[in-house]
Amino acid sequence: MILDGKKVAAEIREKLRKSVAFNLANGLRVPKLVIVLVGHNPASEIYVANKIKACQEVGIDVEKIAFEEDIKERRLLTEIRKLNNDQSVDGFIVQLPLPEHISESKVLTTIDFRKDVDGLTPMSMGRAIQGLPAFRSATPAGIQELLNAYNISTEGKHVVVIGRSNIVGKPMAMMLMQRPYLSLPNMSASSMGDATVTVCHSKTRNLDAICRSADIIIVAAGSPKLLKAGMVKEGAVVIDVGINRVDDASSPRGYRLVGDVDFENVVSKASYITPVPGGVGPMTIAMLLMHTYVAYNGRVLGLKMK
Amino acid sequence: MILDGKKVAAEIREKLRKSVAFNLANGLRVPKLVIVLVGHNPASEIYVANKIKACQEVGIDVEKIAFEEDIKERRLLTEIRKLNNDQSVDGFIVQLPLPEHISESKVLTTIDFRKDVDGLTPMSMGRAIQGLPAFRSATPAGIQELLNAYNISTEGKHVVVIGRSNIVGKPMAMMLMQRPYLSLPNMSASSMGDATVTVCHSKTRNLDAICRSADIIIVAAGSPKLLKAGMVKEGAVVIDVGINRVDDASSPRGYRLVGDVDFENVVSKASYITPVPGGVGPMTIAMLLMHTYVAYNGRVLGLKMK
Repeated sequence: MILDGKKVAAEIREKLRKSVAFNLANGLRVPKLVIVLVGHNPASEIYVANKIKACQEVGIDVEKIAFEEDIKERRLLTEIRKLNNDQSVDGFIVQLPLPEHISESKVLTTIDFRKDVDGLTPMSMGRAIQGLPAFRSATPAGIQELLNAYNISTEGKHVVVIGRSNIVGKPMAMMLMQRPYLSLPNMSASSMGDATVTVCHSKTRNLDAICRSADIIIVAAGSPKLLKAGMVKEGAVVIDVGINRVDDASSPRGYRLVGDVDFENVVSKASYITPVPGGVGPMTIAMLLMHTYVAYNGRVLGLKMK
Repeated sequence: MILDGKKVAAEIREKLRKSVAFNLANGLRVPKLVIVLVGHNPASEIYVANKIKACQEVGIDVEKIAFEEDIKERRLLTEIRKLNNDQSVDGFIVQLPLPEHISESKVLTTIDFRKDVDGLTPMSMGRAIQGLPAFRSATPAGIQELLNAYNISTEGKHVVVIGRSNIVGKPMAMMLMQRPYLSLPNMSASSMGDATVTVCHSKTRNLDAICRSADIIIVAAGSPKLLKAGMVKEGAVVIDVGINRVDDASSPRGYRLVGDVDFENVVSKASYITPVPGGVGPMTIAMLLMHTYVAYNGRVLGLKMK
C-alpha cells in the first residue's frame, strides 16, 4: 500500500487553514514565518517558492528575506538575532545550504530554539533527545506524522535507519527510540517512539542482513536504488527519504527524480511504502507549517515552551 | 580479558596531575571545578566525596557548594548563573538527583555548555550530535576512553546499547554512530565512532537474538544479571554500566554491588569485559577531571569552544 504523503500533507494543510481562519475570524492575528535565503542556488529557490506557496495556501503570513551570495557572516548573524527578538515573527528558517564562507553551525546555534520551526539547531535536537519540549527536525517529524496517519505503530518494532545525517538519520533515530511524549504543546500527534532502532551508514557491514531483520526501514542515504528487494522482509514498511536526479532522455527535463529505494521491485514485498516524489517531501513542508502554527499558538495563546 | 577501568582511570589522573603541576611550575593557575550539592542524599554525598578526592589527587582546585534540601528553585538557578559568569570557575556540575520541587531540566538548561564538564545539558548533547565541539556525557565518554585504552576499535562493529537514559544510553548511541571527530580541543583521544548501533530497551522484542549479533554490548539498564551468557556471542566485548545493590549477608555492609551482567558466566565468552566495581565507574570520574582540565585549557590557553 502506498503511503500517500501528498494526500496526508494536504489534509494537514487543510486543518491548519481552518484553524488560522477560525482564529482570524475571532480577532486574532495570523501566524508569521520568515524564510531567509542567501544567494541563488536554483534548488533552494524552488524549495523556498514551494514553502511560500504552502504558507499562502493555509493563510500563514510568510516573508522571504533574500541576501546576496556575498553577505558577510557577521551581518547574517545580526539579522538572525533581529529575528530572534522580533515579536511579530513566530518562527523562521534559514534555507540551507549556505555559501562556503558562512558557518552553517554558527548560523544554526544563533537561532533561538523557540523560533526554530525547522528543528535543526543543536538546542532543539538536544532538548528533543532529553524529552523536553522542542521543535522536531522537519523531515523526521514528517515521517512520524505519516506513519501516524496510517496507524503504523513503532512500539517494539525493529526500525533500521540508513544514513546518519544531522537533518534526517540522527534525529530520526532519536525520536524513534524515545519514550513517547508530547514534544510540543497543542501538537496534533505525540511523538511516537518505543522502537528498537539500528542506525546504519557507509561503514556498516552486513547491511543486507540487518535490513532483512527490520519491521520498518527508513532510507536517507542519497544513493539511488540502494535498498533492493532482497534486503526487505515480506510485509516490512519502507520509507524513502532520498531524492536523486537520474538522467532520463524520455523526460522533457532530461532527468527524473528517484529515491533511495528500488521501488519497482520493493513495492510488492512491502506492506507500506512511500513513493518519490509524493511521499516524505510534502510531509516535510507540512511540518514547517505545523511548527509555525504551534509557535504562533505558544505566543498568542500562551502555550509556551520553557 | 578484564577491562581495568580502575587502572586506566589512575593513568589518566596521573597524566592530568603532571600537566597541572607543569603548568603551575610555569606560573599558570590550577584548574577549578565547583560541585553543587543539594540536600543530603547519602549516595550523592559519597559520589561527591569521591569526586573531590579525585580532584585533589590531580591538583584541581575543587569547591563544594552545598545547599539544604529546601532551597528554592529560583535561588538555585541564580547560583548557577553566577557560576556561568564566574571567571575563576572553569567548570561545574550539579550533582543529581535533585529534590522533587526542583526541575532537573531547568537546572540543566541553565548551565552554560562551555562549563558543562559532565556533558549533560541539552546544548552539549545537541552539539555533540551535530559534531560540534562540546563536552561529552561523562559515562559514555569514559567508556570510549576505556575502549580506546585497550585499542578496541568501534569502526564497522555492531554495537548493541541496552538502555535509553539521557545520561548513558542515548548519548552513548550518538557518539558511537558518529563520524569520528575531535570533540574537544586538546582532547587526549578523538571520539571514536563509525559503529552500527542498535539501541534496545524495555519495549524491545528479541533482545536475546539482537545481543547475540553484537560485537560489542553496552548494558546500562539498571537490572542485575540482565545480560546472560546465552545472549553473548563468543569473543564479544561486554561493557557493564550497571551498579546495583543486592543483599549479601556474608558482606559486612549487608549488601554487595553487582552490575547488569551475569559476570561469572559471561566472562568466559567475552573477549573483553568490565568488572563491577572497577570498570566504568572510575572512568566516569576521570572524565570529569579530564573535561575540567580541557575547560581550563580553553580559558587559560585560549583553546576555546565556539
